Amino acid sequence: MEIIRTKDEMRAVSAKLRSEGRTLGLVPTMGYLHKGHVSLIKSSKKECDTTAVSIFVNPIQFGPSEDFNNYPRDTQRDTEIASKEKVDFVFIPEAKEMYNENHLSYVRVEKMDNVMCGKFRGNHFRGVCTVVLKLFNIIKPDYAFFGEKDFQQLVIIKKMVKDLDVNVKIIGCETIREPDGLAMSSRNKYLSEKERKNAVILHNTILFAEEEIKKRYKDPEEIKKECLKILNLSEFIKKVDYFDLRDPETLEELKSTRSSPCNALIAAAVYIGTTRLIDNKVVLL
Amino acid sequence: MEIIRTKDEMRAVSAKLRSEGRTLGLVPTMGYLHKGHVSLIKSSKKECDTTAVSIFVNPIQFGPSEDFNNYPRDTQRDTEIASKEKVDFVFIPEAKEMYNENHLSYVRVEKMDNVMCGKFRGNHFRGVCTVVLKLFNIIKPDYAFFGEKDFQQLVIIKKMVKDLDVNVKIIGCETIREPDGLAMSSRNKYLSEKERKNAVILHNTILFAEEEIKKRYKDPEEIKKECLKILNLSEFIKKVDYFDLRDPETLEELKSTRSSPCNALIAAAVYIGTTRLIDNKVVLL
Repeated sequence: MEIIRTKDEMRAVSAKLRSEGRTLGLVPTMGYLHKGHVSLIKSSKKECDTTAVSIFVNPIQFGPSEDFNNYPRDTQRDTEIASKEKVDFVFIPEAKEMYNENHLSYVRVEKMDNVMCGKFRGNHFRGVCTVVLKLFNIIKPDYAFFGEKDFQQLVIIKKMVKDLDVNVKIIGCETIREPDGLAMSSRNKYLSEKERKNAVILHNTILFAEEEIKKRYKDPEEIKKECLKILNLSEFIKKVDYFDLRDPETLEELKSTRSSPCNALIAAAVYIGTTRLIDNKVVLL
Repeated sequence: MEIIRTKDEMRAVSAKLRSEGRTLGLVPTMGYLHKGHVSLIKSSKKECDTTAVSIFVNPIQFGPSEDFNNYPRDTQRDTEIASKEKVDFVFIPEAKEMYNENHLSYVRVEKMDNVMCGKFRGNHFRGVCTVVLKLFNIIKPDYAFFGEKDFQQLVIIKKMVKDLDVNVKIIGCETIREPDGLAMSSRNKYLSEKERKNAVILHNTILFAEEEIKKRYKDPEEIKKECLKILNLSEFIKKVDYFDLRDPETLEELKSTRSSPCNALIAAAVYIGTTRLIDNKVVLL
């Protein structure tokens, strides 16, 4: 496994692969790899001749009051995991390698980046889109693999790729969960033992919403209200940023559970103590 | 010369060239080709194995009160000119081929797109950056050629390419002028005979500013004031959008003509009757 730290080196490696006619899959990550990332790597290895993992905690997708400085980092452990999974290349650039001193260019997927997490995390998706496009331009993968846990991110990146004619196939991969149902996330590390035990309420409330949608007689607003009630009753949930029922493609609000087809994205962001967790589920009816 | 109307066809042609190891130069235009475009084509043919010209009047770079509908179009004449110049490919997509129904993704080069023409033409440079990035993603040229007449556009595109790690070399080419000094522009067609005769005042005022800068004792503000006075005295100039002295790389306002080095971009936009014309000159001292 080759560890690459500069854009030039990464470009050269990618050009060589292309000249040999070998396909390249990219798993873009912020490091602190867990089983969710490993499943993305396995998907890439199944689909592509070679697999690259990028590890970059992207400063421009964090708000000023967010956890950029505290975001968990362990590059040695990450490279060991990647190596064990037989990843071919790990791209680990420094922030100053990725961004010049006077970076001014940004990509936005308007409207979609203003709802759900975008409503609470200012320029978050602008930062995500910008770094993902940069990584695509540097690494030039044929495929890129993203977890469905960050569902809004996945939808926005698919839309960016379509709108801007980016020649990368975006593959969404199933959320990997702990035995109790909690979605894997690098941020789970922040949870105290008690919080960890109770964090599954997020997933369970989403499953409750799924059952209510499947009955197809309640309005989305009513289901939403019931779910907010459940979440707000828990002493471990300090704040609910949102609990939304939306169209899984356009991210527009779900108008009815009675229409056919009824495709619903159930998505939520809550604070367990001071830790912000997100989760979602797509229901296709 | 091959005329290409779809993205897929364009991608296939470009992929074939790459597989043959042949370099591709792109001259992006909005059509209605004049000697300025021809000089860009000649630069591309000198530098690259093959040359593509794109012809696309990009709706998203025009404001609602601007001349999108009236912008001069003559595809037959354009393709004849391109063919005579031995262009290899002309890419002429329809608007609905370029943009899907619900296009939401945009690229901005912030700060730089708010000054000069950006101050008067709302989302103009957002539209320019977005279409140029799309054209680059579809055509994948090695080089792209832009006229210095649209100097702000050139600076912004260079900055976008740098910031977003786009692998295209941007070449700025000298402004081509009519015998009296008026910069070539498709919009010159709008001018009445009398307006055309008097339009050169824009270029001449910029040359006057150049001389004043070279003396290196007046403040930029003073030179600017004198130039605005000259322009406003002409009965043919209906309005001056701006007459600016700026740094040619950062587009920041020039602070002094005494500093060393003193690199100045003199740039202006004026209305001759109802026709908006721009021109500029870079002075390196």
